[in-house]
Amino acid sequence: MKRSNRLIALTNHFLDNPREHIQLPYFSNKFSASKSSISEDLDIVDEMFQHEGIGHLERVYGASGGVKYIPNYSEKNAQAFIDALCNMLEDPLRILPGGYLYMSDILGDPHMVKQIGRIFASKFSDLNIDIVVTVATKGIPLAYAVATHLNVPVVIVRRDPKVTEGSSVSINYVSGSSKKIQTMVLPKRSLPDGSNVCIIDDFMKAGGTITGMRSLLAEFQANVQAVGVLAEADDEEDERVVDEYVSLLKITDVDIKKNCIHVQPGNIWGPRKG
Amino acid sequence: MKRSNRLIALTNHFLDNPREHIQLPYFSNKFSASKSSISEDLDIVDEMFQHEGIGHLERVYGASGGVKYIPNYSEKNAQAFIDALCNMLEDPLRILPGGYLYMSDILGDPHMVKQIGRIFASKFSDLNIDIVVTVATKGIPLAYAVATHLNVPVVIVRRDPKVTEGSSVSINYVSGSSKKIQTMVLPKRSLPDGSNVCIIDDFMKAGGTITGMRSLLAEFQANVQAVGVLAEADDEEDERVVDEYVSLLKITDVDIKKNCIHVQPGNIWGPRKG
Repeated sequence: MKRSNRLIALTNHFLDNPREHIQLPYFSNKFSASKSSISEDLDIVDEMFQHEGIGHLERVYGASGGVKYIPNYSEKNAQAFIDALCNMLEDPLRILPGGYLYMSDILGDPHMVKQIGRIFASKFSDLNIDIVVTVATKGIPLAYAVATHLNVPVVIVRRDPKVTEGSSVSINYVSGSSKKIQTMVLPKRSLPDGSNVCIIDDFMKAGGTITGMRSLLAEFQANVQAVGVLAEADDEEDERVVDEYVSLLKITDVDIKKNCIHVQPGNIWGPRKG
Repeated sequence: MKRSNRLIALTNHFLDNPREHIQLPYFSNKFSASKSSISEDLDIVDEMFQHEGIGHLERVYGASGGVKYIPNYSEKNAQAFIDALCNMLEDPLRILPGGYLYMSDILGDPHMVKQIGRIFASKFSDLNIDIVVTVATKGIPLAYAVATHLNVPVVIVRRDPKVTEGSSVSINYVSGSSKKIQTMVLPKRSLPDGSNVCIIDDFMKAGGTITGMRSLLAEFQANVQAVGVLAEADDEEDERVVDEYVSLLKITDVDIKKNCIHVQPGNIWGPRKG
């Protein structure tokens, strides 16, 4: 097999298996090529992945050596994507009764969701995360997109237990903005004790849901390494109950009378330079 | 930029944008390469994608010509994957009280889910599908995986309306196995009238949920082009209310007393040859 063919197959393999440790003999067998040829191939792939802003190859040398693709989303590309998202969300047609914002079309677009997932995964790339946790239902696609790039499973917290998931642990918590008592449930066998988790959700107002998830996860001795939300609402009346989180977007104002919405980039990279 | 670099960037672009029509000038500008060089690159990529069993490039010649990546999962690879899945599911530890089967770990594995999505998308590749529809919550990750490969959006039917989705259409239906009356809701603005849809769900017993979804979709004048379920239960007592569907797996027996489970490939390719 020629180098040009190998490069295509290698690119496909890495993109399909992010963060998977692969030993070089696997590739030399697959392509009937010498280890040194494969090694040169990997240099080319690595250089090009970095050039395209999609990550890099991590090489481990020595006997049990190999290679791993670490996906990334360059800050420049991510900021351009977030800016475009802000623009899309400021369309007044999105205002729903009650001052809510229609976002289901964005969450329903697999390509958008994939990009959002890649941004979170890049941000959390150096953390030690075993599992992504979300709450049904709107956070689910985002959680899978993050988990795909981190190469870890997803666990879904529900509002009510399901017979098809076996025995569960449940907690009651007070919702942050409506002050109502709500329930959250997680099947016992879905999350090993002491896991390092990352919480992903689509929206955060006062943060009651995130706090509820933290309490439920504490029952599993889980360590919450990171919290990521797509959009946070800037709500001056409520005091936020969650301190540490990363948001892509901040909805600063939904004015029903003036029929206008203001959305700005969230806290993911702090204040923009320049 | 050298051919080897271009091949990596092209492979990434196609895998990231399945079924997206791209005109050749886009690539010649991006890589500062002649149209004929790009055309040769595409031949190499096409050949290699087919060799790897991940699809092919569809070329359109002429003034508005271009190229489109059509993902595929070769039947041979898909059958091997399905056989492995059957084996995994026959583990007696999966039996839950009531004779249910624990499958959340499989549905929680993004890499598994991606492969399942690719198999359905290959099967439905020639159909004219605008939107993938599923019902909350277990079908959601599968629906996104299918939609990613078909390059179409996802719409989620819910059991109860959400304030963040605006006005909704709801129906009541009788569940196939429990004979209970249940509700299904779809936000008005989530599905354009007359869409061509594909229904995806994780599990089907008598088929009441699928029938309910069909009734709800009829309110939107939608044309159901295909129905795909991950697993169907072979239930002799109930008469199935759904005729046309594609399943990857068929759970033929869950015997609590003998502590054993039988799972076989579903109807996706009819009876296996050989």
